[in-house]
Amino acid sequence: MQYDSVSVSMVREMTPQVNRAAVENIVREIVLKRVGPCAQKDAAAHPSRLVVNASARHMHVSQTDLETLYGAGHQLKPRRALYQPGNFAAEETVVLIGLRGRSISNLRILGPVRPASQVELAFTDAVTLGIENLPIRLSGDIEGTPGAFVMGPQGVVELKQGVIRAAIHAHLSPADAEFYGVRHHDVMKLKVGDGAAVTFDHVHARVDPKFRLEVHMDTDEANACALHLAKQVELLKA
Amino acid sequence: MQYDSVSVSMVREMTPQVNRAAVENIVREIVLKRVGPCAQKDAAAHPSRLVVNASARHMHVSQTDLETLYGAGHQLKPRRALYQPGNFAAEETVVLIGLRGRSISNLRILGPVRPASQVELAFTDAVTLGIENLPIRLSGDIEGTPGAFVMGPQGVVELKQGVIRAAIHAHLSPADAEFYGVRHHDVMKLKVGDGAAVTFDHVHARVDPKFRLEVHMDTDEANACALHLAKQVELLKA
Repeated sequence: MQYDSVSVSMVREMTPQVNRAAVENIVREIVLKRVGPCAQKDAAAHPSRLVVNASARHMHVSQTDLETLYGAGHQLKPRRALYQPGNFAAEETVVLIGLRGRSISNLRILGPVRPASQVELAFTDAVTLGIENLPIRLSGDIEGTPGAFVMGPQGVVELKQGVIRAAIHAHLSPADAEFYGVRHHDVMKLKVGDGAAVTFDHVHARVDPKFRLEVHMDTDEANACALHLAKQVELLKA
Repeated sequence: MQYDSVSVSMVREMTPQVNRAAVENIVREIVLKRVGPCAQKDAAAHPSRLVVNASARHMHVSQTDLETLYGAGHQLKPRRALYQPGNFAAEETVVLIGLRGRSISNLRILGPVRPASQVELAFTDAVTLGIENLPIRLSGDIEGTPGAFVMGPQGVVELKQGVIRAAIHAHLSPADAEFYGVRHHDVMKLKVGDGAAVTFDHVHARVDPKFRLEVHMDTDEANACALHLAKQVELLKA
């Protein structure tokens, strides 16, 4: 698939509640509009917009763990809607403490709550925290992964496992999947041009009727490919 | 070019003089031995070994700036030989201070001295330092790049320019260049398999009789492609 042209916009939000690097990462959003082949397609069936977002380190939390961290009956407060419908960055943050005592402050919780708590870090974060061999996993696949302590204002949770580097993945609606010729769990490629030209050769396709077309990478990947400089991206079946 | 098999070894060195993350990065070396096609080639003409190294942030210094930082007549003290002949990590480190006052301690100087001082950072470092729009440049191409203050035990140097992200590049001897079918300034690709599968599509070929075959990437790139997990790499003409 070739795109004749793309346009780039970047969204930056600042907040005093998290450190600058985290903020700069969490809000680094590049929206690349597909033009060209889509003009000849049914725009309703294939919304002509490929979004690539860098996810900064964050935590998904179970309701049980949330109540340990923030008190009985606590409900996550949405702070900012994420691109996937229903998902949001919450007001709540925690302190992540590695098993050797080093910590990362202001780790943001993403909502809604999930059946199991999970922490997603970039390798750079894991080095900071002293976690070696951070496994690369799809979200939810946390069996046998490293643990950590998580501290909130009302209590501490020991995660026996659940610290991962999230594998780069694409969210697709069934219509998007048909457009790209892929199915759930297929492998796709993402080519990022300009700046640093990098191809991610193993992008996991995740197909769900609730999804909007979006590639999620982590901040190491975004920095390596200079996502903020990218004027061209191309998603295709591997 | 296909490799039938590769072997990986990783060298780790620890030192109390720089922070752990910097150490982990600076000494992360992956040596991948090419096997297969090279067995049928002249081993002397094409040493069958492709080395991929992640360069942590560092500084190259002019003799003039070195003497401002460390005193008149100071000579760099080699601490560890690097893979390229004659290059070394020096004992000397500096504090790098961004124009907004944020700093990075223990920035290591690499020797030998050069005609102009230059600081090479990963994007992650630039975010830490508050440098936006860190340009991606080949080493030595520093016209119009951001500046910084550098502090040594004997004085401070203001770099008017010279802070870059080094573009990923391959060092090749003329024999290596012939083997890969490339010339100085050509573009090559580096495919890194396993872990995170990533292809770097714009690897600058640098050919010199003094060079040994080696690809240099920065720590963001190494983290993004999970270089320490890589069991397969492939360098080829783009």
